Amino acid sequence: MKFDYHIPTKVLFGPGKLNKLKKEKLPGKKALIVISGGTSMKKNGYLDRVVGLLKENGVDSVVFDKILPNPIRKHVMEGAALAGSEGCDFVLGLGGGSSIDSAKSIAVMAKNPGDYWDYIFGGTGKGQAVTNGVLPIVAITTTAGTGTEADPWTVISHEERNEKIGFGLIPETFPVLSIVDPELMLSVPRELTAFQGFDAFFHAAEGYIADIATPVSDSYALKSIELLASNLPTAVSDGSNLEARSNVALANTLSGFVESTSTCISEHSLEHALSAFYPELPHGAGLIILSKAYFSFFADVVPKRYKEMARVMGKRVEGIPDKEAGMLFIEALGELQDKCGVGNLKMSDYGISEDEIPKFTDNAFDTMGGLFERDPKKLSKEDVINIYRDSYR
Amino acid sequence: MKFDYHIPTKVLFGPGKLNKLKKEKLPGKKALIVISGGTSMKKNGYLDRVVGLLKENGVDSVVFDKILPNPIRKHVMEGAALAGSEGCDFVLGLGGGSSIDSAKSIAVMAKNPGDYWDYIFGGTGKGQAVTNGVLPIVAITTTAGTGTEADPWTVISHEERNEKIGFGLIPETFPVLSIVDPELMLSVPRELTAFQGFDAFFHAAEGYIADIATPVSDSYALKSIELLASNLPTAVSDGSNLEARSNVALANTLSGFVESTSTCISEHSLEHALSAFYPELPHGAGLIILSKAYFSFFADVVPKRYKEMARVMGKRVEGIPDKEAGMLFIEALGELQDKCGVGNLKMSDYGISEDEIPKFTDNAFDTMGGLFERDPKKLSKEDVINIYRDSYR
Repeated sequence: MKFDYHIPTKVLFGPGKLNKLKKEKLPGKKALIVISGGTSMKKNGYLDRVVGLLKENGVDSVVFDKILPNPIRKHVMEGAALAGSEGCDFVLGLGGGSSIDSAKSIAVMAKNPGDYWDYIFGGTGKGQAVTNGVLPIVAITTTAGTGTEADPWTVISHEERNEKIGFGLIPETFPVLSIVDPELMLSVPRELTAFQGFDAFFHAAEGYIADIATPVSDSYALKSIELLASNLPTAVSDGSNLEARSNVALANTLSGFVESTSTCISEHSLEHALSAFYPELPHGAGLIILSKAYFSFFADVVPKRYKEMARVMGKRVEGIPDKEAGMLFIEALGELQDKCGVGNLKMSDYGISEDEIPKFTDNAFDTMGGLFERDPKKLSKEDVINIYRDSYR
Repeated sequence: MKFDYHIPTKVLFGPGKLNKLKKEKLPGKKALIVISGGTSMKKNGYLDRVVGLLKENGVDSVVFDKILPNPIRKHVMEGAALAGSEGCDFVLGLGGGSSIDSAKSIAVMAKNPGDYWDYIFGGTGKGQAVTNGVLPIVAITTTAGTGTEADPWTVISHEERNEKIGFGLIPETFPVLSIVDPELMLSVPRELTAFQGFDAFFHAAEGYIADIATPVSDSYALKSIELLASNLPTAVSDGSNLEARSNVALANTLSGFVESTSTCISEHSLEHALSAFYPELPHGAGLIILSKAYFSFFADVVPKRYKEMARVMGKRVEGIPDKEAGMLFIEALGELQDKCGVGNLKMSDYGISEDEIPKFTDNAFDTMGGLFERDPKKLSKEDVINIYRDSYR
């Protein structure tokens, strides 16, 4: 057992914690605030609050408000140019994973030359090293999905190339400060709550069966899965329940810790291929659609791990042989999806055709092939085609 | 649920990891190496290895080798003076908790005026703020006991005042880098392995029942307890077993994370009182002596938590009512102590007299009264006297 552990981010967690922004030590005097192109940050008053709290803390700010739900390279470059021309000292991502991931990538490009894709590993990325440092990053989450506030990862799509690729092998893309205030999540719509909750769920579950999992990542993963199993259905059905929202928010932060100590596996490669071609497919929905077929594939490879996941999801497992217990997790996963109202999602609802499966398969290996190396058992292209087929409706 | 999470330390964990010292980015060009006044760091060749690896990394070093098993204020002041006169950029603690804790306190006093006790809260400490910063700290552990490589805490005794007090409410006393290489622990003697392993155990168990525990600290605590229950007896009986040593080392690092996210409770106050008057009593032995009576006191206060600890220690708990399950933990604790050969330690073996109990009780409240505030139920002085009495043999 060997591993390096480094999660330098300071996390302020809990209802009301956003107010700490006015006193917390911040990494500079001028912030680029990165938010989505939608209206929610303004309509809910979150943007005004953040601008006001920064001002109380003696920090000026400029807003960049173009980020798409599946964020793109072009906006990274625009945001970085704005950070430069405005002389920003740090980048503050406010919103969901798309805004915070964009903030991270903007912080990289604000200090490094060339194009963002020059620094991407995979696809047509050039895999160059980041040599000029990164602007400090602050994350304020308003959804519970990607765990990006607690990991170094950012996922951006190339708007012209059907490539959606993760980046973040450097410690500088960890936020220096993350504020996770579940009060900001009370307004997330029902369906999005479920999609994002399952994104967090799969970060934890994939990281738990990845071949580089350690007892440290395991402890984050199991707690995250347990919290989601007990709280996500309530957070979906009663979005105003602050306790359920808090537990789901914590599960999400823990799933970020899993990303920082273990890794996603190829389920994410398979999903990124879908949403690279169909950007309107929410990432969490894509994962849900693939999940039962995907996880069934490894049930007899790591049965003890499946048993442990089933246990923390409320299944009685004492005395049940490992082999049988494996499928208990798949059962629990299906039940949780049904309880959250997302048990019947279909690829065809998003316009995806079964004929495209070979194309998705190639894309998954071409753009995010590295994650297949961390699966508990190597998947062949044929296996991947079968998982897509089994998931197709 | 509200908490702040910040563990900025980079931890390199695993057999052989010490060799990374020659390539890892270090916080300066000259190190003060702090080791114990004993012979083990030299005899085992660890000091020479560290000096050599630093040199390969372009870092000079000076050695301060006076630290006692229960480290004292006087040596903190001497070490800080040496760091100053030698112009050291950082302080490297090599050894067990006493050396690493001393390195932390030396790093504070190398940059701040006056006496170390000026900055101590509790006892006769003056509780002044640390305003000049702290030299960066690197920790290299050769034992698995205090978890100090993964927390901001340092415990030092005042050599003239029977006060043994923890310090570390500032993030600067987290090591910037910690190396936990279980190969360095293979030579720890049997009895010390058990004492230190139980120190880690109680950090986890106390942090799990503390009133500021969070799901994050819980996940560290339970994993630490689980690893110790399954591995400490083997590490004690067969010290050359690298797998058992690794699992115990990891449990210890996790117990440091518990210290960083929850807290010790008053069991530590009670023990510090004993070893403040009897410095030859190992801290872990003192905790073991107190533990059964101490933990019995809270069995019906937090029975679900006791049940969960019993479960990860291998007890069957499914279907057992919480009330009964509480005592299962005490049973498991006693069995683990017996398996590690430390079930029959006595205060009288260390020359402690039963008449001194009122003195210990006063000292526990006077010097480390704060920890009583975090107990799951408030202990009166009479309760504490009874715990000492029940523990006395």
